[in-house]
Amino acid sequence: MKALQYRTVGAAPEVVTVPDPEPGPGQVLLKVTAAGVCHSDIAVMSWSAEELSFPLPLTLGHEGVGTVAALGAGVTGVREGDSVAVYGPWGCGACIKCAEGKENYCLRAAELGIRPPGLGAPGSMAEYMLVDDPRHLVPLGGLDPVAAVPLTDAGLTPYHAVKRSLPKLVPGSTAVVIGTGGLGHVAIQLLRAMTAARVVALDVSEDKLSLARTVGAHQAILSDAGAAAKVRELTGGRGAEAVFDFVGIQPTVDTAGAIAATEGDVTLVGIGGGALPVGFGRQNYEVSVTAPYWGSRAELIEVLDLARAGDVSVHTETYSLGDAPEAYARLHDGKINGRAVILPNG
Amino acid sequence: MKALQYRTVGAAPEVVTVPDPEPGPGQVLLKVTAAGVCHSDIAVMSWSAEELSFPLPLTLGHEGVGTVAALGAGVTGVREGDSVAVYGPWGCGACIKCAEGKENYCLRAAELGIRPPGLGAPGSMAEYMLVDDPRHLVPLGGLDPVAAVPLTDAGLTPYHAVKRSLPKLVPGSTAVVIGTGGLGHVAIQLLRAMTAARVVALDVSEDKLSLARTVGAHQAILSDAGAAAKVRELTGGRGAEAVFDFVGIQPTVDTAGAIAATEGDVTLVGIGGGALPVGFGRQNYEVSVTAPYWGSRAELIEVLDLARAGDVSVHTETYSLGDAPEAYARLHDGKINGRAVILPNG
Amino acid sequence: MKALQYRTVGAAPEVVTVPDPEPGPGQVLLKVTAAGVCHSDIAVMSWSAEELSFPLPLTLGHEGVGTVAALGAGVTGVREGDSVAVYGPWGCGACIKCAEGKENYCLRAAELGIRPPGLGAPGSMAEYMLVDDPRHLVPLGGLDPVAAVPLTDAGLTPYHAVKRSLPKLVPGSTAVVIGTGGLGHVAIQLLRAMTAARVVALDVSEDKLSLARTVGAHQAILSDAGAAAKVRELTGGRGAEAVFDFVGIQPTVDTAGAIAATEGDVTLVGIGGGALPVGFGRQNYEVSVTAPYWGSRAELIEVLDLARAGDVSVHTETYSLGDAPEAYARLHDGKINGRAVILPNG
Amino acid sequence: MKALQYRTVGAAPEVVTVPDPEPGPGQVLLKVTAAGVCHSDIAVMSWSAEELSFPLPLTLGHEGVGTVAALGAGVTGVREGDSVAVYGPWGCGACIKCAEGKENYCLRAAELGIRPPGLGAPGSMAEYMLVDDPRHLVPLGGLDPVAAVPLTDAGLTPYHAVKRSLPKLVPGSTAVVIGTGGLGHVAIQLLRAMTAARVVALDVSEDKLSLARTVGAHQAILSDAGAAAKVRELTGGRGAEAVFDFVGIQPTVDTAGAIAATEGDVTLVGIGGGALPVGFGRQNYEVSVTAPYWGSRAELIEVLDLARAGDVSVHTETYSLGDAPEAYARLHDGKINGRAVILPNG
Repeated sequence: MKALQYRTVGAAPEVVTVPDPEPGPGQVLLKVTAAGVCHSDIAVMSWSAEELSFPLPLTLGHEGVGTVAALGAGVTGVREGDSVAVYGPWGCGACIKCAEGKENYCLRAAELGIRPPGLGAPGSMAEYMLVDDPRHLVPLGGLDPVAAVPLTDAGLTPYHAVKRSLPKLVPGSTAVVIGTGGLGHVAIQLLRAMTAARVVALDVSEDKLSLARTVGAHQAILSDAGAAAKVRELTGGRGAEAVFDFVGIQPTVDTAGAIAATEGDVTLVGIGGGALPVGFGRQNYEVSVTAPYWGSRAELIEVLDLARAGDVSVHTETYSLGDAPEAYARLHDGKINGRAVILPNG
Repeated sequence: MKALQYRTVGAAPEVVTVPDPEPGPGQVLLKVTAAGVCHSDIAVMSWSAEELSFPLPLTLGHEGVGTVAALGAGVTGVREGDSVAVYGPWGCGACIKCAEGKENYCLRAAELGIRPPGLGAPGSMAEYMLVDDPRHLVPLGGLDPVAAVPLTDAGLTPYHAVKRSLPKLVPGSTAVVIGTGGLGHVAIQLLRAMTAARVVALDVSEDKLSLARTVGAHQAILSDAGAAAKVRELTGGRGAEAVFDFVGIQPTVDTAGAIAATEGDVTLVGIGGGALPVGFGRQNYEVSVTAPYWGSRAELIEVLDLARAGDVSVHTETYSLGDAPEAYARLHDGKINGRAVILPNG
Repeated sequence: MKALQYRTVGAAPEVVTVPDPEPGPGQVLLKVTAAGVCHSDIAVMSWSAEELSFPLPLTLGHEGVGTVAALGAGVTGVREGDSVAVYGPWGCGACIKCAEGKENYCLRAAELGIRPPGLGAPGSMAEYMLVDDPRHLVPLGGLDPVAAVPLTDAGLTPYHAVKRSLPKLVPGSTAVVIGTGGLGHVAIQLLRAMTAARVVALDVSEDKLSLARTVGAHQAILSDAGAAAKVRELTGGRGAEAVFDFVGIQPTVDTAGAIAATEGDVTLVGIGGGALPVGFGRQNYEVSVTAPYWGSRAELIEVLDLARAGDVSVHTETYSLGDAPEAYARLHDGKINGRAVILPNG
Repeated sequence: MKALQYRTVGAAPEVVTVPDPEPGPGQVLLKVTAAGVCHSDIAVMSWSAEELSFPLPLTLGHEGVGTVAALGAGVTGVREGDSVAVYGPWGCGACIKCAEGKENYCLRAAELGIRPPGLGAPGSMAEYMLVDDPRHLVPLGGLDPVAAVPLTDAGLTPYHAVKRSLPKLVPGSTAVVIGTGGLGHVAIQLLRAMTAARVVALDVSEDKLSLARTVGAHQAILSDAGAAAKVRELTGGRGAEAVFDFVGIQPTVDTAGAIAATEGDVTLVGIGGGALPVGFGRQNYEVSVTAPYWGSRAELIEVLDLARAGDVSVHTETYSLGDAPEAYARLHDGKINGRAVILPNG
């Protein structure tokens, strides 16, 4: 079959022919209908050979949707032809984190050599992909594959971040989303659907601010040196009960810390390399700062339910597998509007 | 001043002239702008002399909004002319429940003889009312007094009930509101504003079901013998993650128990006298059943914030103080559309 | 191999020879070191043919501990010789409940015909048992198999019940345990280890009350008509913030409802057939009543960790597989002191 | 009456005679039985005139216990002669934070000029003190005043910190206390009484580590460059689910960040000026870092309940009011063993 592989450190990914995979006992073979192109792939491909924690070649794609093509021995609960999304952050399935469905935080993945598809294991940018266990599959339930596939990361990651802060986002509270691109514009929709909080968007681009307003932000503010003062003014000096930073560079991280209200949450999602110094007197009292990673199995089910209710959607543009290298090149150059989706069998 | 009083057990309330109240130390005198007429007043006036836990005459009105007319000695934090809502379920202010703002559950109110205004203490259906402590006042912040006054009970009570179940009302879940009148139609609005759950309304009246749809219910179902089966069908057999019963008679309580999903909540708000027998094998696993009372101080602040954001409103019809007896008569006869509000100084 | 089977409705279980099981793909074969004898087996064996939801014969035993004897194809993460406990309430592994590790509340188990070992699937009262998936195994980590095996149900069930109420069991609160036998005397230990609440035990037997004191109850009270008044007196009239009923007959259920404090929890664990009518004015305000079932995968890991720390233990008496029918007979007659454990390979 | 006042920036506090205070409307006059000497007083007295946010002279003492000597007009719910502790972090009583009893986080205190006793308002180091509102009083309920007084800050502050992490401190988890002096040795007791977590103490002093073991730490480790590695080893590489830093200098803050487990909490209580840079890849996934301040009204009630149950105690040494300057000098020099308590009427 054809697959998009990252084969040489520093080189562009390329479409190659690889052996057709066969499902072993307990595994499920998917015919891939859609695969999402993600910034973190670009990051992986920028690492040096020493930084890479897995061998090449690697079939890319950690966002995947497909139809069940074959069941390995002993698999129950799914049937051939089922249309499913893949939960990406695979874990051991048995440790206390995995027992709560938080396989993104598996305690044994490193020890057992378990890696997510597209980030170590063969990913979704191929005609077929192997899924290690049927527990990683969520039925699409009528969702369009192209619309659904970005939700497995670009939806799940902000969903997990937003869910952390729901108890604080009571009526009268304010949520700030910094960076209203791929993940941020999903976060705005999630906040509007799941809370009565006022939602304020910050971005450096007027286009992105316009998108933020379109998807539901109550206010959209240019992210510059005066942004923190504007948020404080909007909130009567109190600040925001939750701040989500989808950029994560030092200036946005500093802004996040400066606008969080007493007992507020700062959630750093963007991997821009910034860090917020937390200490007594540095932020308002009891501001809680954290940097999560991806989300849980139950949360992916909830995100897909939300999409099915029409409460969240991602703008997508589609590419054939042959054009996937071009999609990565465009993403690298900041030319993708929303999320690029590869159709390996399209 | 003029006041509407319940003076004789079994008699109708009447407008009388009583001495003008003066604020003692720590108290606040309000000039009442609006006072809500509530079903529970009808219930109180149906009790026998033995059932009444306080002496007559009683100035009615446990929903009140006014402007600060005078401050007792030592009062700080409010100023004359401030427009405020009154938190009704007064407590001692110091026990562990009151220390968390749950004065509705004060551990010492009975011992200290503390009663809510209009339910023991002189209420809001008068030109002026005394508030025992400024902590019971919430600034209106620009809300219209007539629109705001029902929120202090008909808003706060369902808000408290809904807030209990928020962690269970994830995307993909279902909330059922039984009885979509005064409190129920508010609950629907709260659920739509604060969750992504599907909201299903049950009522015996097509008019009420129509109102339920107007204020946001996704489905509205006639509350009859087949209602439980319909809810189960709508939810793929799972049932509802939260059921709010604003009627509370035996048939509705039984329906609530029959449609609650595994780990679901049943919250019995209506005081119709029904009781749900809870036990192993009676409901789905770990259905949690409770009957709360009113809400907390912080929750009232949140309800008013929600109204200020435009996310909840109550249909009202207004009456002068002189016409208040008629408002009660109409309420008793089921002729009030929404909530009757008295304007004691109107 | 030899197995203890329930073969005929109404008859006693008997030791028979059955074919040696072989692990299919994804399954794990355990050599059973210990199997717990539980009251619910007695209940199952009292059902009529119509009430039984699975065919006979049935190899009994839903509490099991063993060593890994063989791995089915594709199994990873466990090794031959590992000493493990079996999580009993198997589910589909993929629905939203299972994705949170709450396989006890699996939404698809009935549809897929999944039943717990010993309660439909072949159980632990045999020389060998099959476990459907390695995710159901928890490493013993040095725990003694006989001491550990009752924790998989008699430990996990009260643990789940107690965990529900932890947020309410602050210092100054009271927890009441009704029925201080197998599960109840574990609950007392859990409450002492995990909370600073005062723990009050109620039982009809002075022996059990003595055991309750030995394992940590602060007070132990005879469970009679005056018990509720005594608990109210002990708590200054407030009642208990959490009541756990491990009996579940009507008198204990009524007591539970009568002694629960405002905002308190009543958790009905015993399957004695009682039901508590919950409604406004029936209990203190916002008493929350529920009847759970077993516990989650993560909770079993936690219970075993607690035992490893020396904070919980169960009194056991051991029997060979040949003597297992006698153990059931003794349990039926109320002659087991603590928990009977079968040693199928002993 | 006599009072210990801080009168001149940079000077030592001195005992002076000031007018006897009289309770105004709504206020309560206490005859002080015990007043705690706290490190934060030393910090305040080290500030420059510009840094001080209130005028001098200041009567010191933000930990206070006394008997009610007189009631201002309108005060109810307390009686002369009642023995009470004072909740110190006074707020407006009405904002949403105060409505939840979190007056330590009052949104209006600065605007209204409200300051805690001993930190702006006249404190407890005097024969008498004024309390602004009876809601700030918690009955001692038989506790010894000297034993109780440190609990109002040195007990409440770690209690609030510990309470944040209780949901994470399940059996099998680890809590680390860095700095086992005044607040830290209380934290160890709280963790032992309220959780089943393993408790590990870190300190630079062998004496303090010995105290840590005495009050219940399971392990006590010298806080040096190898401490983080030791904690990781103790926890099988996982790290600690909660880390409490009662020192707060850069080395301890760095250690805290290095040993927190995935999804763990780091709570920075000590005001040593350190700050932990939080960002993706800096700590384990989703470590949540915060710096709280003091605690809530309900939490103070709970701490006193815990002391009454015998689960927490503070070592104290007592001084007359005349010797209070010496107590401060000894505290400054690190010579106080436990907590110094002043007896203004002793």
